[in-house]
Amino acid sequence: MSVQNQTAARPKTAISPTRAEDFPEWYQQVVRAADMAENSDVRGCMVIKPWGYGIWELMQRGLDAMFKATGHKNAYFPLFIPLSYLEKEAAHVEGFAKECAVVTHHRLEVGADGKMRPAPSAQLSEPLVVRPTSETIIGATYAKWVQSYRDLPILINQWANVVRWEMRPRLFLRTAEFLWQEGHTAHETSAEAVEETERMLGVYETFAREHLALPVFTGEKSESERFPGAVQTLCIEAMVQDRKAIQAGTSHFLGQNFARASGIKFQGREGREELAWTTSWGVSTRLIGTLIMAHADDDGLVLPPRVAPSQVVILPISPKPEGREAVFAAAEELAGKIRAQLFHGEPVRVEVDKRDIGGGTKSWEWIKKGAPVRIEIGARDIEQGTVMLSRRDMGAKEKTAMAPDALAGEIAGILQEIQDGLYARALAWRDEHTREIDSREEFYAFFTPARREKPEIHGGFARSHWCGRGECEAVLKDELKVTIRCIPSDAPYEAGACVVCGQPSGRRVLFAKSY
Amino acid sequence: MSVQNQTAARPKTAISPTRAEDFPEWYQQVVRAADMAENSDVRGCMVIKPWGYGIWELMQRGLDAMFKATGHKNAYFPLFIPLSYLEKEAAHVEGFAKECAVVTHHRLEVGADGKMRPAPSAQLSEPLVVRPTSETIIGATYAKWVQSYRDLPILINQWANVVRWEMRPRLFLRTAEFLWQEGHTAHETSAEAVEETERMLGVYETFAREHLALPVFTGEKSESERFPGAVQTLCIEAMVQDRKAIQAGTSHFLGQNFARASGIKFQGREGREELAWTTSWGVSTRLIGTLIMAHADDDGLVLPPRVAPSQVVILPISPKPEGREAVFAAAEELAGKIRAQLFHGEPVRVEVDKRDIGGGTKSWEWIKKGAPVRIEIGARDIEQGTVMLSRRDMGAKEKTAMAPDALAGEIAGILQEIQDGLYARALAWRDEHTREIDSREEFYAFFTPARREKPEIHGGFARSHWCGRGECEAVLKDELKVTIRCIPSDAPYEAGACVVCGQPSGRRVLFAKSY
Repeated sequence: MSVQNQTAARPKTAISPTRAEDFPEWYQQVVRAADMAENSDVRGCMVIKPWGYGIWELMQRGLDAMFKATGHKNAYFPLFIPLSYLEKEAAHVEGFAKECAVVTHHRLEVGADGKMRPAPSAQLSEPLVVRPTSETIIGATYAKWVQSYRDLPILINQWANVVRWEMRPRLFLRTAEFLWQEGHTAHETSAEAVEETERMLGVYETFAREHLALPVFTGEKSESERFPGAVQTLCIEAMVQDRKAIQAGTSHFLGQNFARASGIKFQGREGREELAWTTSWGVSTRLIGTLIMAHADDDGLVLPPRVAPSQVVILPISPKPEGREAVFAAAEELAGKIRAQLFHGEPVRVEVDKRDIGGGTKSWEWIKKGAPVRIEIGARDIEQGTVMLSRRDMGAKEKTAMAPDALAGEIAGILQEIQDGLYARALAWRDEHTREIDSREEFYAFFTPARREKPEIHGGFARSHWCGRGECEAVLKDELKVTIRCIPSDAPYEAGACVVCGQPSGRRVLFAKSY
Repeated sequence: MSVQNQTAARPKTAISPTRAEDFPEWYQQVVRAADMAENSDVRGCMVIKPWGYGIWELMQRGLDAMFKATGHKNAYFPLFIPLSYLEKEAAHVEGFAKECAVVTHHRLEVGADGKMRPAPSAQLSEPLVVRPTSETIIGATYAKWVQSYRDLPILINQWANVVRWEMRPRLFLRTAEFLWQEGHTAHETSAEAVEETERMLGVYETFAREHLALPVFTGEKSESERFPGAVQTLCIEAMVQDRKAIQAGTSHFLGQNFARASGIKFQGREGREELAWTTSWGVSTRLIGTLIMAHADDDGLVLPPRVAPSQVVILPISPKPEGREAVFAAAEELAGKIRAQLFHGEPVRVEVDKRDIGGGTKSWEWIKKGAPVRIEIGARDIEQGTVMLSRRDMGAKEKTAMAPDALAGEIAGILQEIQDGLYARALAWRDEHTREIDSREEFYAFFTPARREKPEIHGGFARSHWCGRGECEAVLKDELKVTIRCIPSDAPYEAGACVVCGQPSGRRVLFAKSY
């Protein structure tokens, strides 16, 4: 995982450039080499290819089970939002106006030049916005559903696509269209809504840790980074290998802002009409980008087993056509034994790659795709009663001979060891690059690229005091592009001085450059 | 299931009007009473509520497993299609032009009147169409992926939302936005593509039969009903309870039409450049509408257990507060025992409804929602060591006393019996209303509402001879609104005379009115 100390006798890597050479370009090359996604011909929109989508399916499955276990149900709301709905909450429309795709016509016709055009006679009386997020349309619906406190809480999640026009798109990280889930809940009391907001942040933290092998900081956003229209935005923030932060999920306490805008009113226990308290929370395909930047190495993607579409890949080695069937049969037999094992309650996902291409090429394809375990099996292995095991978290050439039955018996343990190892490595990396910084000089030095060899490798996370004023925050954003990633939930009281102005501060907050 | 003979001493029904009184209105009331979906404020777009969406999730899960078992992987392609892409295939754009939602701007701004409007400076140079289907955008992508015959076949499916502007929307059946899956495959040879088209039709037929308890006719569409741009459209057609047909799924052999339009070329085995052969196939949330119209009765929805979000609902009966905890505990204990049973490889889905509302109201809610099995458990039942079982496929008042352990042991069998019973009932209904008709007079009588008491209850399916000419097809469409639903795949050669013109015909085709 080390980005440094790679000048001397570096072995050839599967991905070029390496992380140390050019991190942003390395990222693009990992996505390409793992065959996860590509840019489409529609500006800013991506094509998510089967390997990338398979990862998303596993993320969905894991999160969905956690949402249901916390009492939520899925539903589906319209893709289109009437412009007037978006306008109901002033901060909200201001926050999203600049990135809205707008539908203005509902029919095409052949124009005078013989080409198709939007039919002028089919112009919509009110333009529709393709949802950038669904608070307003869902709020309008909840307003109809809620009459009494007995109708609360409403605990609903939606899996959907959303569109936020993007001028500088980047696969998974910033795309005009992306896939996500958005939870939208309505509650009787402020306390319940706050509790829900925190509960879902906890779900995200647990999911990141247990499924994605990602340690994240949790906390609250400062006012300037808050979701447009929210009272409070909580977030999980991960550190990736260029030491920048990435916001990997958010949970918003919306107070009564959207309930007021949408008219979500109910008759309370005392008989009075009250406004509901709402929350919303979401994670998106951006998690895939986060995963890549956190775990991949100079040989390509490295997948935590829990989100690997194929956890084990069996590679039959059969140079001679006449031995092929026997090797294939042995491979399938082993696959069956491995599939019979459970990992986190599900059969281990195993694939036999029988394609007729060179063994080296094939093996490297799976390394670049990040498959956690590779197993080679050849004619001689069958004779000797062994197969060769390789792990993606170890060197590409490290192989261990194992008896097939022993391997099947140990596979769940091996996968968990890989899962845990990736977490430990990411945590060590984050800790190594998270520093308490108390002077403005040191802070600037930490974040100033000119002082570093590689401009795209950044300082890391600084835990520094902040007086709480937006002015000081703005100075760091303007001068260093450093922002407050979060005010950690668990920050103890500690007397100190704002790293910018020197005014008294009662706690440290987390600063970093970010995606 | 009988719609007739309900004039004398009809019992009060939970849904009003009944099927016999007003089928279209009955349908809307079933959707409402089961709390499945509602119209949104966006014209033609629906809100799919948790119970409706839960059914869709189960349909997705069932189909997805079948797609994967037949070698397909999921991926995701852009929501937006450049107008010029849609134009590449002439028949295709003509088929969809009239129902396209068109994005023309990518930003909002405040206009002179202080209100938000699409920003004139952010007008797109080329309008984007919200996908009505994805052949063109996916074709353009496959063109980049395919160089050699070794890159084929491509077997991909996408779960997505699509938009087809709809002037007369109806929940689940015709909505401007709907959810669906669209498979898109590319092959080296025509034969392989035809085989794929037929394989996926088979998957749909199996899914309808085994999961939805729906008998369907399979066959080919006539030219006039073909998918715009397809060479051949295969379909599954179901009969619902007003005896109309509904197209429940389609599988298209696209020949080389879209490959030519999109440039999906490859170097063939002989070294020549060839065009790929493509297919596409899809089913949508329309399946939910089909399910309702096929199985629901005058008391509301009736769900086949395999697609019921809750297969078993336990209703604790506890009039006195002091006995409540014991009843709840017994209910939870039983729920645990039932959940430990497998039905088609998955734990039985059981829910304990502890809401503090009247027992009768609660029980009727679940009847209207179509839950296959209801179990009442009260203080006296606990003493006697029994619970009361009711089945949605039997009368609302029929109850069977059973010991909890025996019930748990038999639950999978009971669910399968309900599943099979619904299929048998739907099949009998279809057979009863499918007739071989050989004279034009009889054909007109069969389909003429004036001769029937209820104009909204239609004749059924007519298996009649057709000469193969579009003119005869048009006559029936114009005069009776009857169309050829399909040319059955298994129709044997049989000499006859076209039911319209009397010209010789070699086979019967399936005629009906349709949704």
